[in-house]
Amino acid sequence: MAVYTEITDDDLTSFIAAYDIGHVVSLKGIAEGVENSNYLLQTDRAHYILTIYEKRVAERDLPFFLGLMDHLADRTFPCPTPIHGRDGEALRRIAGKPAAIVSFIEGLWVRRPTPDHCAQLGAALAQMHVAGGGFARQRGNALSVADWRPLFERCKADADTIETGLADNIARELTDIEKTWPTDLPNGVIHADLFPDNVLFLEGKLSGFIDFYFACNDFFAYDIAICLNAWCFEADGSFNITKAKALLTAYRRHRAITPEELSALPLLARGAAMRFLLTRLFDWLNQVSGALVQPKDPLEYWRKLHFHRGVTGPGTYGLE
Amino acid sequence: MAVYTEITDDDLTSFIAAYDIGHVVSLKGIAEGVENSNYLLQTDRAHYILTIYEKRVAERDLPFFLGLMDHLADRTFPCPTPIHGRDGEALRRIAGKPAAIVSFIEGLWVRRPTPDHCAQLGAALAQMHVAGGGFARQRGNALSVADWRPLFERCKADADTIETGLADNIARELTDIEKTWPTDLPNGVIHADLFPDNVLFLEGKLSGFIDFYFACNDFFAYDIAICLNAWCFEADGSFNITKAKALLTAYRRHRAITPEELSALPLLARGAAMRFLLTRLFDWLNQVSGALVQPKDPLEYWRKLHFHRGVTGPGTYGLE
Repeated sequence: MAVYTEITDDDLTSFIAAYDIGHVVSLKGIAEGVENSNYLLQTDRAHYILTIYEKRVAERDLPFFLGLMDHLADRTFPCPTPIHGRDGEALRRIAGKPAAIVSFIEGLWVRRPTPDHCAQLGAALAQMHVAGGGFARQRGNALSVADWRPLFERCKADADTIETGLADNIARELTDIEKTWPTDLPNGVIHADLFPDNVLFLEGKLSGFIDFYFACNDFFAYDIAICLNAWCFEADGSFNITKAKALLTAYRRHRAITPEELSALPLLARGAAMRFLLTRLFDWLNQVSGALVQPKDPLEYWRKLHFHRGVTGPGTYGLE
Repeated sequence: MAVYTEITDDDLTSFIAAYDIGHVVSLKGIAEGVENSNYLLQTDRAHYILTIYEKRVAERDLPFFLGLMDHLADRTFPCPTPIHGRDGEALRRIAGKPAAIVSFIEGLWVRRPTPDHCAQLGAALAQMHVAGGGFARQRGNALSVADWRPLFERCKADADTIETGLADNIARELTDIEKTWPTDLPNGVIHADLFPDNVLFLEGKLSGFIDFYFACNDFFAYDIAICLNAWCFEADGSFNITKAKALLTAYRRHRAITPEELSALPLLARGAAMRFLLTRLFDWLNQVSGALVQPKDPLEYWRKLHFHRGVTGPGTYGLE
């Protein structure tokens, strides 16, 4: 969530004047999203999202994110489309910070995904992976396997305050993942943060992906693994094979999953769990007084990691 | 701000089914408002605000607030109109908490009010005071003169951590205000929280008052005094007599200010400053870890109080 930047009347007027989007009739800060300040901007013509990029997003990455949304939208993939100003630019500044306006995607995120939601997610994920082909810019994954140990080193000393033995467990698991992490799977642009709150549905149909601010170049199957973790576990921690099968089967209809990807999936899912375990652990141990967001339970992701460690083949995910 | 309550898909579906407002196409938590959870609810027909009443608002007061908005809207006063369900009820429950849907008021609040904004505010305030006539329900002001001392008692011990001597200064001033507070000025329904963020303007014209959750029965002139404090001081603490004159002159065109009200105005303004000084002081001294709102500076209101103490007649407010 969050509205970290206060916009004055003059700021807004001069910012909006750079666009041909009509007159502003409403601007409301949205209580969603952790990294940036997001406003729902309504004009007499349409709805938009105005995003002000706060310091957690590197300014040098913004052309990648905005360019990617342009690229995907050009290929009719449902996602926010950057609105370009009269000068052709999608990125400019407001209140001294980088900012952009994107189109508004109608829809709600589902709090309790069903197998049908997972199937639609799988299909759209594959379509996004295909549609990302030919995008000229590159951005490395800043939270991939090489980044986990430095992050762990910053949490290690306090990890056992959450659960006794957690630091040792993570260290052992991390070593194992680092040794076996694949190097040559099919790759391209991935979303890298496709949690349910980043996928909107309208009247039961997927209406778009949002929040591309972790998007990067990495293994497609790693994106699938993130989704398995985020969509296919129940609140009680159990893995729902029906949802996983729905997700993967629908994905395959739009992009083939190679045998190498399939056999790497349990490892990638452990890695994906490690990534969110570590960032959650870091946020948990470094809670800012007056922060706007309730930190999420890191142990949820330790349990997910543990599940995938016991997976011996794709049958556990509902595939042959 | 705030979204304190998570709404599940099922919660939303069954809640919306009670209304004839079309299909939901979007629901975004709004990062504004301190007391309640507010969502911008968009259907295929219109925009609405869905408010979930959190524990800071007493449930027994909700029929007053919603009834008042109905009453004012019936008299074409621009404010959110409660949407009544198919059963005729405007108040029902979602996720176990009281909730209501009201119409969406287009417009933006002004960060830097001009004399013209103040004039429009004054006119609308008088119109609201007149339009509130005949409203059948009553609600005492829960933050009036009798409530300030108990609130002060809860802050007194720590007040000097903010500024040396503050506790003594408040105690002396409070005694003075209590002794001289008027008892028989013209009264009726007042808004009681008409800060700039509760008044929307569209293309330079006042489009509505929002957030009636402090509304109550009290002196009309006390509502004026709150506005003088909230709208007529500059960021540097100076009092802008041009804005005050604009506000009061426009008010008078729609409702006469009696000589008794006029002479009580400096005292009412001190009292209004005391009320916000004390609630800000309390919030400042009782900051909740993980809270969603940055507490506001209490001393700003001490300085405003001090200004009004020096006022000898209505001339200081721009009136004869």
